[in-house]
Amino acid sequence: MSGWVKVAGLGPGAEAMVTDQVRAALAAATDVIGYIPYVARVAPREGLVLHPSDNRVELDRARHALDLAAEGRRAVIVSSGDPGVFAMAAALFEALEHRPDPGAFDIEILPGITAMLAAAARLGAPLGHDFCAINLSDNLKPWELIERRLRLAAEGGFAMAFYNPRAASRPGRFERVLDILREGCGPDRLISFARAVTTPDESLLTVTLGEARADMADMRTMVIVGTPDARRVGRFVYSPRSA
Amino acid sequence: MSGWVKVAGLGPGAEAMVTDQVRAALAAATDVIGYIPYVARVAPREGLVLHPSDNRVELDRARHALDLAAEGRRAVIVSSGDPGVFAMAAALFEALEHRPDPGAFDIEILPGITAMLAAAARLGAPLGHDFCAINLSDNLKPWELIERRLRLAAEGGFAMAFYNPRAASRPGRFERVLDILREGCGPDRLISFARAVTTPDESLLTVTLGEARADMADMRTMVIVGTPDARRVGRFVYSPRSA
Repeated sequence: MSGWVKVAGLGPGAEAMVTDQVRAALAAATDVIGYIPYVARVAPREGLVLHPSDNRVELDRARHALDLAAEGRRAVIVSSGDPGVFAMAAALFEALEHRPDPGAFDIEILPGITAMLAAAARLGAPLGHDFCAINLSDNLKPWELIERRLRLAAEGGFAMAFYNPRAASRPGRFERVLDILREGCGPDRLISFARAVTTPDESLLTVTLGEARADMADMRTMVIVGTPDARRVGRFVYSPRSA
Repeated sequence: MSGWVKVAGLGPGAEAMVTDQVRAALAAATDVIGYIPYVARVAPREGLVLHPSDNRVELDRARHALDLAAEGRRAVIVSSGDPGVFAMAAALFEALEHRPDPGAFDIEILPGITAMLAAAARLGAPLGHDFCAINLSDNLKPWELIERRLRLAAEGGFAMAFYNPRAASRPGRFERVLDILREGCGPDRLISFARAVTTPDESLLTVTLGEARADMADMRTMVIVGTPDARRVGRFVYSPRSA
């Protein structure tokens, strides 16, 4: 098979955070596949076919990329952030698993700056200690499992990074997350809302769990909870390395 | 204050994974500070002073950078990977906290591709579900806390990424980690050892916890444990998005 599939992380938004490795893959591609706003970040050029698709069709995208590779084409699936963190890499391997010849495909995952690390950098160093990354969407796992993981993360004194805070299928779910966190971490723990980091729409807010409200997060917000020792210094928030 | 401090992530090793943002900061710097092998990755040039230092002097480095900024110089502290993940960002804020005027400093954290995400990309998508990042070094926290977090992470079915698997101060500690993981996750769970990823020395190994041995990891190894559903496809390993 002369074609290939690369899954590339475009980072959080700023062009200066795209790696050369990802740029080189896009320059070599014949096809770019992905969610509409991510494909829109790729400059059109002669010989490059753009395949933007709507949200929640991850497996279709992955199958399409494998089909293209089998035809000898060079397909890049674009993700925001890092493709390995709640993004397209796992979906590609799910699709690959259903092929009779998974070993025949030339596949490469190209990492990027994932949203939690971009957000953490803008906030200071809230993930400067052991931490958990949890996807709050219950599209692909039971809500009860999310609640259990929140309690265990709180019990362990982990810092926490939450993806998709408002993607839960039923309203009131992020309110419930905040209640569980208040119960497990107390009202004084710092929580940060980092919206659209590295873009012109960026906004940053750090409050205590006692002050936190669900409407502080929307679909473009990363939510980060510090460790029990997390504190403010100047305009920053950080979780100390020691505990 | 006209000087500044930036803490820059150089990524896992490959030059193609350094962001333009980090390259621009290095081009604008008067001083580069960091652990010897990381400073060695910065090309010398006229007007740039390199300050390589030995391991375990993170706070000294941070104080030095703040002193330089106060003198009007432009200091970049270099970290491998991402500065916010078990690296220099938190140390800088610790040092800043001891200044009488923390708000007077111009500080920026520049994210990079952290080792666990570079390793995950080379392995497939072992962190494709909720995961924990744990530093196994007990230099700055009690060993008992590490053991407790391992048990909680196993109980929650998180994927896990371990930094510094062989940095624990006493021998036998990583053997103990493997015992706890076998107890909490069972012998069939997949564990990957990704050494020196993206460098010419790279090696990748995935085995079951039952087969894992402590000598599979050294100081340059990231260790990644998949979720309960993690499995192999072709030469890759991935944790499915659903659970």
